Amino acid sequence: MKPPVTRSPRHTLALMVCVVLLGSMRARAQTDPLPSWNDGPAKKAIIEFVQATTDQSNPKFVPPAARIAAFDQDGTTWVEQPMYSQVVYCLEQVPVLAKKKPELKHVQPFKAVLDGDRAAMAKFTMKDLEKILAATLTGMDVEEFNASVKAWLASATDHRFKRLYTELIYQPMLEVMKLFRDHGYKTYFVTGGGQDFVRQYAEQVYGVPPEQVVGSAAATQFGYDKTGKPMLTKVPKLLLNDDKAGKPEGIHFMIGRRPVAAFGNSIGDKQMLEYTGAGDGARLMMLVHHDDAEREYAYGPTSKVGTFTDALMSEATKKGWIVISMKNDWKRMFAFEQ
Amino acid sequence: MKPPVTRSPRHTLALMVCVVLLGSMRARAQTDPLPSWNDGPAKKAIIEFVQATTDQSNPKFVPPAARIAAFDQDGTTWVEQPMYSQVVYCLEQVPVLAKKKPELKHVQPFKAVLDGDRAAMAKFTMKDLEKILAATLTGMDVEEFNASVKAWLASATDHRFKRLYTELIYQPMLEVMKLFRDHGYKTYFVTGGGQDFVRQYAEQVYGVPPEQVVGSAAATQFGYDKTGKPMLTKVPKLLLNDDKAGKPEGIHFMIGRRPVAAFGNSIGDKQMLEYTGAGDGARLMMLVHHDDAEREYAYGPTSKVGTFTDALMSEATKKGWIVISMKNDWKRMFAFEQ
Repeated sequence: MKPPVTRSPRHTLALMVCVVLLGSMRARAQTDPLPSWNDGPAKKAIIEFVQATTDQSNPKFVPPAARIAAFDQDGTTWVEQPMYSQVVYCLEQVPVLAKKKPELKHVQPFKAVLDGDRAAMAKFTMKDLEKILAATLTGMDVEEFNASVKAWLASATDHRFKRLYTELIYQPMLEVMKLFRDHGYKTYFVTGGGQDFVRQYAEQVYGVPPEQVVGSAAATQFGYDKTGKPMLTKVPKLLLNDDKAGKPEGIHFMIGRRPVAAFGNSIGDKQMLEYTGAGDGARLMMLVHHDDAEREYAYGPTSKVGTFTDALMSEATKKGWIVISMKNDWKRMFAFEQ
Repeated sequence: MKPPVTRSPRHTLALMVCVVLLGSMRARAQTDPLPSWNDGPAKKAIIEFVQATTDQSNPKFVPPAARIAAFDQDGTTWVEQPMYSQVVYCLEQVPVLAKKKPELKHVQPFKAVLDGDRAAMAKFTMKDLEKILAATLTGMDVEEFNASVKAWLASATDHRFKRLYTELIYQPMLEVMKLFRDHGYKTYFVTGGGQDFVRQYAEQVYGVPPEQVVGSAAATQFGYDKTGKPMLTKVPKLLLNDDKAGKPEGIHFMIGRRPVAAFGNSIGDKQMLEYTGAGDGARLMMLVHHDDAEREYAYGPTSKVGTFTDALMSEATKKGWIVISMKNDWKRMFAFEQ
């Protein structure tokens, strides 16, 4: 028979500390960083990439300064169907604009929007749309524009889901962005959407600060208001068309480093993924595929919004880009789902 | 007579810990964050601003996300006389360019540079200079350009100081940038110099990463090399002329937040300081004044490089911008001085 173990109060305290520490370590190891993902190759690839590139003993290690992860926005981190949220904003701003400029009531394409003429709107050309975007996204003080977007986002809702646009965020992608950030990555948006538009909610909704939003952007013009106070006016001159080839160009311009990971969902993201993949060392390129008509939408080659062609699918296969099936890979789509 | 104080080993340990902690606190309080500055209103203003804006109990507190400090580069953080370093680089690249394009030997303004015709070069118009800049800063792969700048910086030296250009950094300003960063500020360059040029040394020399360099920038064009590898080519189309009004415009485009502190040295920085000053809450605007011909240069209203007009001085006085006298405020100019 062994003698009973006697413990001093100090030993007991040390033991308690160890129990707590070990317990929290086990709890951490068991916490799934991507709880909205089903187990599968996509989830596995993300977790393995983040672990490998942040482990100094791993040959795939990426130094903290180079940890740049780029995310497309429309269709990759929030809903883009049936129409980009920013385009909805622009259309809904036309009546506001017409109050200031009543002459627009008689001018197309504004008249069609004001009359609610859906048949005419369905026939809008790219040029018509550009006229509406230019009229509603430029010509005002930057701060006036920002306030207008914020006010719209606080109340406008999507027709199908009856939710604020900022609630139509893919929970699985939020988790991916957080996982990257928790491992020292800077997460950037690289979006065809308007830079100033996205900046109004990116920080609050996604944790992406304004300086990490690369998007399509009109120039601004510095000047002074009537009181002599400096101001910036948005002018109808496109500085950056952040789509397709414009994405790597925008990345070089605004970040100046090649990302090591890039996430997209359409042919507009092809060049960004190619550019990301062309760098040395570990790389992760992924495409969100909209194949879940029940919970969201299913679309591909023939969709005007978020086109995903067969050629893009072939390139993904050939280059080892991982295609995320929203239907199979995502356990939960939105935070508001139970 | 009091009884002698007895201490248990635990009390002794606690006492030792307190002595060490208090000692390190005193040592920290006594460490001057700006040792290259003489005591005076400029040094006092910087230290007080950083302390006030990062102290939660102070009404001037600035939340961490909004802590943006903008620094001009040429003449504010390194020597810009007798000519901007980047212009020296461009002129010295002309012979390299002429090897690839021998026809330039017979074309002005390239001929004058190749012949070393100082009389002709002294008469160069802005248009002549632009031709040289366009020819030496664009037309190549981004990575080829970066490598060329890095190689040049590693060996080219300034004529007066016989030092590498990256050694001609103002030690007092390095200390200011570090002080800001140590208090949770992001330090940005907002420079009329070329964004890609400055990015080649900003991180190593100043601790400013590529994504925090806002500068004049040519567009790039995405494409593929002969092997099909994605590449970016620098093209002669100016996207951002980051000087004067272009500075606040560039800040809005690339940062999307108004800085709370801005440092400049010439009329090219006026609009940036105005824009910074027009925000709410605590603000710090400072201008480096070159008044030390002995240790560096003395220049002002009549200088083509780094013009500092009487009107700028008046505006500084009127608006409470602090003018730094290099002669009086700086104890030490360069790190290589003893």
